Amino acid sequence: MLQNYINMFKKREKISEIEEGKLLSPKFDNDGLIPVVTTCVKTKEVLMHGFMNVEALKLTIETKEAHYWSRSRKQMWHKGKTSGFVQKVEEIRIDDDQDSIWLTVNIGEGSSCHVGYRSCFYRSIPLGKIQNAREIRMNFEEKEKKFDPEKVYKGQPNPTKI
Amino acid sequence: MLQNYINMFKKREKISEIEEGKLLSPKFDNDGLIPVVTTCVKTKEVLMHGFMNVEALKLTIETKEAHYWSRSRKQMWHKGKTSGFVQKVEEIRIDDDQDSIWLTVNIGEGSSCHVGYRSCFYRSIPLGKIQNAREIRMNFEEKEKKFDPEKVYKGQPNPTKI
Repeated sequence: MLQNYINMFKKREKISEIEEGKLLSPKFDNDGLIPVVTTCVKTKEVLMHGFMNVEALKLTIETKEAHYWSRSRKQMWHKGKTSGFVQKVEEIRIDDDQDSIWLTVNIGEGSSCHVGYRSCFYRSIPLGKIQNAREIRMNFEEKEKKFDPEKVYKGQPNPTKI
Repeated sequence: MLQNYINMFKKREKISEIEEGKLLSPKFDNDGLIPVVTTCVKTKEVLMHGFMNVEALKLTIETKEAHYWSRSRKQMWHKGKTSGFVQKVEEIRIDDDQDSIWLTVNIGEGSSCHVGYRSCFYRSIPLGKIQNAREIRMNFEEKEKKFDPEKVYKGQPNPTKI
């Protein structure tokens, strides 16, 4: 069945077709995954980075709601199904060698981060000469959480792994 | 030496520290890589998706110019060294579980895509019910190339792999 899925899209045969052609011919890695970056249609910020398998990509195209493959839970992940923060897909793009995906989504006033922030990328790394790499102190770019994850995800395991 | 690099940053010990703390403690995958999304400070568009190893992340922080690990060439990749289209880093962010990086860069009037377009994501995938997944026709969102890759990368192998 996995093999059927992997063969779902056009077979990758010629580099010129992959780069300059019109036919969707995505490349999945050895784990059957393709990386995905998701940005907000309103603020243009990067909301999250995830992965899709063949089925998640198909579901996202057809339902116009973002689906990912959860590597930590090892299952299909219809984003927002638990929290209510569904991502309505406005556009899907693919890159030159067709091995990564860019989703533009509408989340309204919702959030994308399981920690409670709007974007998963709420911390910045200071630039310049590193004095001690084990003590690089980041800055919080979002000042407050948009929701309380303990209420929204009550009783569910944290997807973050050490 | 690789082990030294992997231990360069703060050790990942507690999920609460990784998610809510200030110390940079990035997670590299089994190949020693962390995915990176790069956006344009001016247009906010996603320019490219790549990967960094520990050394590329350190070089990017310290030099304020984007460095990636080229998986196809298996070597450090100072972006723009050949083409001249260096990416000046304006901001680096990391996500909640510290396993992906977001770079905001200034490329002036330059480009980021080895095929010649400004962004690597120059094609969009049509949304809705899929009739035949082997014939999904994409749309070109960039109408013309910004440079001629055959001149800029003369004699160099194409990094795209089947």
